[in-house]
Amino acid sequence: MCKIEFQPQGRRIHAAKGTSVLEAGKKAGIPIASDCGGKGRCGRCRVKIISGKVSLPDNDERAVLDRKLGTSTERLACCTTIDGDAKIHIPAASKRTEQVLLLEGKSRSPESVDRVTVMGVQLNLPSLNDQRSDLQRLMDELQLTDRERFVVHPKFVHRLSSLLRSSEGSFAVFLKEGVPTGIGPLGSVPYGLAIDIGSTSIAGRLVDLSTGEESCSAGIMNPQISLGEDVISRLTYAINTAEGDEELSSMLRKALNRLAETLCEKGRVSPWLVTDVVLCANTAVSHLLLKLPVNFLARAPYTAGFSTQLELSSTDLDLDYIPCARVRIMPCIKGFIGGDHVAMILACNMDRSNDMVLGVDIGTNTEIVLVKPGVGGGMFVASCASGPALEGAHIRDGMRAGPGAIEQVQITDQGPKVKTIHHKAPVGICGSGLIDAVSELLRVGILGERGQLNKNAKRVRARQNSLSYQLVASEESGSGDDILITQKDISEIQLAKAAIHAGISTILEKTNTMVEQVSAVYLSGAFGFHIDIDSALSIGLLPEFPNAKFIQSGNAASVGAYLALISKKESERASRIALKAQLVELAGNPGFTHLLARALRFKTKLD
Amino acid sequence: MCKIEFQPQGRRIHAAKGTSVLEAGKKAGIPIASDCGGKGRCGRCRVKIISGKVSLPDNDERAVLDRKLGTSTERLACCTTIDGDAKIHIPAASKRTEQVLLLEGKSRSPESVDRVTVMGVQLNLPSLNDQRSDLQRLMDELQLTDRERFVVHPKFVHRLSSLLRSSEGSFAVFLKEGVPTGIGPLGSVPYGLAIDIGSTSIAGRLVDLSTGEESCSAGIMNPQISLGEDVISRLTYAINTAEGDEELSSMLRKALNRLAETLCEKGRVSPWLVTDVVLCANTAVSHLLLKLPVNFLARAPYTAGFSTQLELSSTDLDLDYIPCARVRIMPCIKGFIGGDHVAMILACNMDRSNDMVLGVDIGTNTEIVLVKPGVGGGMFVASCASGPALEGAHIRDGMRAGPGAIEQVQITDQGPKVKTIHHKAPVGICGSGLIDAVSELLRVGILGERGQLNKNAKRVRARQNSLSYQLVASEESGSGDDILITQKDISEIQLAKAAIHAGISTILEKTNTMVEQVSAVYLSGAFGFHIDIDSALSIGLLPEFPNAKFIQSGNAASVGAYLALISKKESERASRIALKAQLVELAGNPGFTHLLARALRFKTKLD
Repeated sequence: MCKIEFQPQGRRIHAAKGTSVLEAGKKAGIPIASDCGGKGRCGRCRVKIISGKVSLPDNDERAVLDRKLGTSTERLACCTTIDGDAKIHIPAASKRTEQVLLLEGKSRSPESVDRVTVMGVQLNLPSLNDQRSDLQRLMDELQLTDRERFVVHPKFVHRLSSLLRSSEGSFAVFLKEGVPTGIGPLGSVPYGLAIDIGSTSIAGRLVDLSTGEESCSAGIMNPQISLGEDVISRLTYAINTAEGDEELSSMLRKALNRLAETLCEKGRVSPWLVTDVVLCANTAVSHLLLKLPVNFLARAPYTAGFSTQLELSSTDLDLDYIPCARVRIMPCIKGFIGGDHVAMILACNMDRSNDMVLGVDIGTNTEIVLVKPGVGGGMFVASCASGPALEGAHIRDGMRAGPGAIEQVQITDQGPKVKTIHHKAPVGICGSGLIDAVSELLRVGILGERGQLNKNAKRVRARQNSLSYQLVASEESGSGDDILITQKDISEIQLAKAAIHAGISTILEKTNTMVEQVSAVYLSGAFGFHIDIDSALSIGLLPEFPNAKFIQSGNAASVGAYLALISKKESERASRIALKAQLVELAGNPGFTHLLARALRFKTKLD
Repeated sequence: MCKIEFQPQGRRIHAAKGTSVLEAGKKAGIPIASDCGGKGRCGRCRVKIISGKVSLPDNDERAVLDRKLGTSTERLACCTTIDGDAKIHIPAASKRTEQVLLLEGKSRSPESVDRVTVMGVQLNLPSLNDQRSDLQRLMDELQLTDRERFVVHPKFVHRLSSLLRSSEGSFAVFLKEGVPTGIGPLGSVPYGLAIDIGSTSIAGRLVDLSTGEESCSAGIMNPQISLGEDVISRLTYAINTAEGDEELSSMLRKALNRLAETLCEKGRVSPWLVTDVVLCANTAVSHLLLKLPVNFLARAPYTAGFSTQLELSSTDLDLDYIPCARVRIMPCIKGFIGGDHVAMILACNMDRSNDMVLGVDIGTNTEIVLVKPGVGGGMFVASCASGPALEGAHIRDGMRAGPGAIEQVQITDQGPKVKTIHHKAPVGICGSGLIDAVSELLRVGILGERGQLNKNAKRVRARQNSLSYQLVASEESGSGDDILITQKDISEIQLAKAAIHAGISTILEKTNTMVEQVSAVYLSGAFGFHIDIDSALSIGLLPEFPNAKFIQSGNAASVGAYLALISKKESERASRIALKAQLVELAGNPGFTHLLARALRFKTKLD
């Protein structure tokens, strides 16, 4: 056993030789961040060995540390094992923090609400004189003779057998178009779940189906992140690892059970009352969830398996926490344009727009939709790889949106001013902070058009043969370290914003649309919700749209799932969106490549 | 380690102290019979300790041995552990043998056959110019616009995504009323499985759905037998054991997967081609399979959870071997009258009979149906507990129908003559042999009307204060032991036959039916198939029906499942049978109790 001391927490524990620092931290009650599940890939678990004996880094660890501009004393906690007594420093940025999840989206009135009817029944209990089966007893009471329309799942019978006896025959039946969708104790109502499964986080709403009103919402992280930060690396894992697809599916199914549990507990609702679920997700995640083949998704022409709504029982999807629910999966469009994008288009009413409108969902993969009403118009969709930089990954001091993340930056004569999430001492920078920082550096001239830092500017210093800008000095940071914007960080952002800009420009060009014609731009998703539009325009993340209003619609996908849950008409609209959307191919498109090269420069304008 | 020698096999092994004799036999390659899974309950694993040191029997073991009229040297192999070197005799009757399963039933022409249409399609493969999803591609080809009727399971999409590419777009689509039920390589056809799950054995047929013809059949033992020999003990296990219901369900689901595999391999059919399954089982087994509550089934008024057909996906039932199939569960009638009885009524066309007909399925539980056509008539069903004696259980030398089981007995002046299954040397007696033996003993006067053996008759001897008849002498038996019919065996048979006789008499009495009015008696199931009708009548197992023909219809339930599989009309008839059947209550009925007391005597006539 070795004595381990953690700084600055001052926590001391004993750990066996060979224990990883990640494990030791956990034992000491100091959970260390790890996106990759301790596989040495994400680089979030950096620690400093102050003194003592630990294992030496191998080449893989060195490569990850290099990417993160690690100093010589920095190590990955998951790759470092204890070899004797040691003193280890865990910086604040490496401590696991709650991520702030965006659950809410801009809501709109549903076209119609199909409220579920709740009817009280009083059935005679089975007796020697009346030995009808439980199900027959209910069907007789409801005068259901058209049995064809009433496909009963065994779980419904299960619930009925129990409730019939425990309620002594008096209970509530939930009816949709005359057909029972569930039962519950007298006074209860049916519930639905609308769930948007994002690559990073999963947002769910619990909805009272007798009114169509939301009861509560909750979010959790998507656990698949431990097997791949973005969709491409998850597909690669699924294809190249034995049982990898099974593993990705099963961890997601477990997470959905947990989310359902969280929602039911928060809303104080019995899980037996959940009768309907609508799920939306991007194409890869939808396919992984359903255990559909994904090897076709990862290579051209990237076609999806399905583009109509699928339906199955919750137990068929291992959602055993809500055994009585029917689950609908929102339709996908193409390989990289999924049910979440359909839900977003639906939520923003874009399919009903009388004007030209653009929708953009920025993430590791950015989806774009342009709606052109009228003759010769249509709904055009495209997707481009924009990389994880805007989510704070592959950025030296990047982090996800959590307490202590810098989300706003202003540079004044006195130097940079930062605003952090939850007003905690700054420990890193999240996406919107990065955009602000770059925009401000451009504005005050510290950063040039081609993305080069001015080595003579204040707070710009050369470290390890590379320039970086000191955004927060060590003495003011929550981590005790400088928070820097490096030259490499700026390149990553340049690449990301160029891809998005070029993607939007290409879709406009291909459809002969002028920026002046666009009347509204919807920015959905967490990143689109938090960024400062002016900053985004000033760094050229988005083209200028002189006549458009910008709408930051938040988690629009979860709103779309909600609408499809409570309204048959909205659900049918979603199917039509998936059918109608026309793909504009970006990859390999010479126009896109040309526009991408131009968009790499800052302050580019569309000409 | 101890040296163990097995006789008469002469096999020697070394086994650790504490090893059970059951385990040691397995190790020596001499599998010993055990119905209860080595739990010391069934008494099938009796062995003799010739010499050496073993553990002493406890009271539970003694009670089981007593029941089986064990001799002082007999022990249960599962309860006896090795304590030193030993020599052990394994009688032939205790060696595990293949049970002869009854798969076939009397077939009839189906009312109609809904043949599935097979259509070849040639689809364009996905390309950058045609990125429709795989499912949309197929729906467009089939001009399926009415999407409401086509509820797609993700497994269908899974199969489509793979086959579309592996076949380069040319494959076969299986259509039922214009809706795809499956796909396969060009030249393939869809298959269905019709499965009858009995308490003891499971019989399955593989059916070509494009013609409605059977391809092959196969049977396996129902593994639930290891947790309870009869339905009541399984219900008790499910109710009183933590996770017992889960265990019973999961072992059955695994067995169904194995049976599906056996059928597909025998028929050389890819499991992906199996699109439909029809299952029938008694009520308890149906409920256990579906994980429905069973505590209500085990107590009055014994009502079933469902009495209409249920439908679910194969994966929802863990039948992962045939991932693309829809499974239909045949409707139950009441607690002890299940889907197998409905299937039997259907197979024997009893619901369409213009004459009065009776159907009897004899087992541990015996189900009876009487059909009276015309005004004031109906379909009357009853069930009575007839015990396991007729299946060879609780009989000293009883065994299931397997090689070496005595199935026919004749007593001549020269003494008894026996016929065994597969003409092997006799090792025990199965149900039909018992009926024959009792009938012959009555005929020649060795057995009296009240069931007492004549102690002065030839081959009757007193052993351990009880009389028994030597059916086979030790030197002629395959086990080296006498095969006896004991006074206790005769009592068990008396009880069983009295229950069946009284059950039939009660249903006749309650419906004011005279034996003369009955024109046909269907005896279904393995026992009803193998017994000699004259023997059964002469011992009073069945009342005399002077104007009836007796039809031994074999595994009629599996025929019923087959009919429901290939024909919608037959399937709807099954639903109507379940709805129409009226229960005649026997338990607690004073008439039944009176008739039971009278039927205990042999040679009783219905007056």
